[in-house]
Amino acid sequence: MHFFEKLTSRIVTQPVLEINLNRLIENYKLLNRIIAPSIASAVVKDDAYGVGASEVVRALYEYAGCRHFWLAHAVEAQKVAEVAPDATIYVLQGMGSDSLDLFKKYKFTPVISSLEMWRYYQKHKIDEVKPVIYIETGLNRLGFREDELKKLSAKDLKSFSLVMSHLACADEKDHFMNTRQLENFKRLKEKYFKDLPASLSASDGAFLGQDYCFDMVRLGAAMYGINTAPYRENQMKNIITLKAPVLQISDLPKGEFVGYSATYRANTDKKIAIISIGYGDGVPRVLSNIGKVFFKTGSKWSEARILGRVSMDNIICDVTDIKDLKVGTFAYLIMDDYTLDDIARDCGTISYEMLSNIGKNTRFFRKYILSAR
Amino acid sequence: MHFFEKLTSRIVTQPVLEINLNRLIENYKLLNRIIAPSIASAVVKDDAYGVGASEVVRALYEYAGCRHFWLAHAVEAQKVAEVAPDATIYVLQGMGSDSLDLFKKYKFTPVISSLEMWRYYQKHKIDEVKPVIYIETGLNRLGFREDELKKLSAKDLKSFSLVMSHLACADEKDHFMNTRQLENFKRLKEKYFKDLPASLSASDGAFLGQDYCFDMVRLGAAMYGINTAPYRENQMKNIITLKAPVLQISDLPKGEFVGYSATYRANTDKKIAIISIGYGDGVPRVLSNIGKVFFKTGSKWSEARILGRVSMDNIICDVTDIKDLKVGTFAYLIMDDYTLDDIARDCGTISYEMLSNIGKNTRFFRKYILSAR
Repeated sequence: MHFFEKLTSRIVTQPVLEINLNRLIENYKLLNRIIAPSIASAVVKDDAYGVGASEVVRALYEYAGCRHFWLAHAVEAQKVAEVAPDATIYVLQGMGSDSLDLFKKYKFTPVISSLEMWRYYQKHKIDEVKPVIYIETGLNRLGFREDELKKLSAKDLKSFSLVMSHLACADEKDHFMNTRQLENFKRLKEKYFKDLPASLSASDGAFLGQDYCFDMVRLGAAMYGINTAPYRENQMKNIITLKAPVLQISDLPKGEFVGYSATYRANTDKKIAIISIGYGDGVPRVLSNIGKVFFKTGSKWSEARILGRVSMDNIICDVTDIKDLKVGTFAYLIMDDYTLDDIARDCGTISYEMLSNIGKNTRFFRKYILSAR
Repeated sequence: MHFFEKLTSRIVTQPVLEINLNRLIENYKLLNRIIAPSIASAVVKDDAYGVGASEVVRALYEYAGCRHFWLAHAVEAQKVAEVAPDATIYVLQGMGSDSLDLFKKYKFTPVISSLEMWRYYQKHKIDEVKPVIYIETGLNRLGFREDELKKLSAKDLKSFSLVMSHLACADEKDHFMNTRQLENFKRLKEKYFKDLPASLSASDGAFLGQDYCFDMVRLGAAMYGINTAPYRENQMKNIITLKAPVLQISDLPKGEFVGYSATYRANTDKKIAIISIGYGDGVPRVLSNIGKVFFKTGSKWSEARILGRVSMDNIICDVTDIKDLKVGTFAYLIMDDYTLDDIARDCGTISYEMLSNIGKNTRFFRKYILSAR
């Protein structure tokens, strides 16, 4: 590379997170058609899996007609209430003395999952709100077990607006737990909540067939582009692009080490690029020495391996074979051809955790793509 | 457990993150004594490793006299400028066209780590500010290599307020890289920056001895309680307590499965507690089936193993042997006797990444402990 060429580079330092809300809306609408006539509610807990609850809810509310939103905690439901004023807002972890004021102020719908919480709710009812009851069918997480249901009075059982449960293994089409939980849910619903609207599935359950959809499906991961039916090709569109600029390009002479604890040693002369992103931006440290980034130079895409440890603010890549790379070029960490599912697999985790960790960082230039429709 | 006992439980749902700023100040002051007469600057990038940059900087500024703060990006330096008006604020990733306006507005001090960035800086100087120059000594990350230093004029070399570098292996006392980098730094400083103040070490380097301290040490991890000298017992105090309430206590009959993908199966009848925290709050999913939490019942501490997968909002623990546990009791995930270093080791990562991932979540009730002094 000539010195003059390097000087024509642009100098930028901030990583960029692009969130394509047009595609999120397309994913929602496709899922909506798959599960029809069930209601397509949206799971926007954990700040919409890190993507930004205010922006996601506004898009779904205004452009897709969504009126049912699920959060985990009342504190995170506040900003949803502000952008979706007449929607029903469910709070999955339920109601307690630390959130009662918010429930009263915003009329959130609590999900009641235990007898203790039901007794608490009875003392602190929210006007105009009928709670949801969560029943346990096999996940062995939250929810009324049958011995607890038996302790509810006939009047108690009429107090709810919806009965729900949650599947443990819905991302595996033929897992025995699916039919077991479906049978448990149908039996308990028939016995205790005969005419009550019901919801069993999240987006993975949506692909198991109409039997699993009941009156409402809670769409989360698939809407964000994650393949929740990994036994077949993803039908959802990627909504996330993560990229960061090259700050510096340098020679790495043979025998030199790279990064903390000197875990990489060059066995030939190499060229390296230092990228302005690290685990402080949610790039998992397990990608040390195994992760990769992508560069577009001209019309050609190239792959560059991460060398050494991922540090808090930087990663270092092997760009020996990439011609014409300049300072200021963006390295892509997540994009249409290397999605959340791909990077999560390389990290040995799931896309949900990946997105949740990346999306919450505040150092990104955050760009939402949403066209007038 | 009797039914009546369960009804006396309190019902709370929100996880709690306690940050002890008194201890952070104590850690800072101890480090300050160790490195004296070097200046004790504070690294508060990545939102003070997730702990909260505004709160940390205010505490260090008002109660410990700290006047030098290091950030990675200009966007994160803004809120530091607001609470520490006359401090020097360094930006490690340097200056670019995407941050120039912030540099001009707040008079941040850019760290210049390449010839390209130096040329850019020359065209866009910040009044009243003398930049820092970052030189490469063996980490092979950012920084001027010697061939780049040679291209700077005598006048260029006089333009800086500080020359810095960064150690790769300072957490290993006898690592050959330490002396190699020290010698490189001394040689380059002598040759190009003879009378300029210098900074080589972060908090791990502070424990390598006075030779490594030069004029300024950049205190980060150790100040937050992390053991950056793991070859000996930690001298720092833990500043983090993470806890979350028990939402429900249930029987888990023999043969039943727990959590997503049914990765845990009970081989005897058990009792489980469902806790209101998950990977959406930064509890790593790698703790599935191997992590643990702690309960205090009466005056006794007990340990409870995590069963099945960590999910986004919940973990499930084996509490079969814990007597008198009630709904509403807090499960401790990080505390004085099971610190960030302990949980990070169980996760196969470092405390820095652990803290950075936990601290950024917004669903916590966040409690800062800071007494009038």
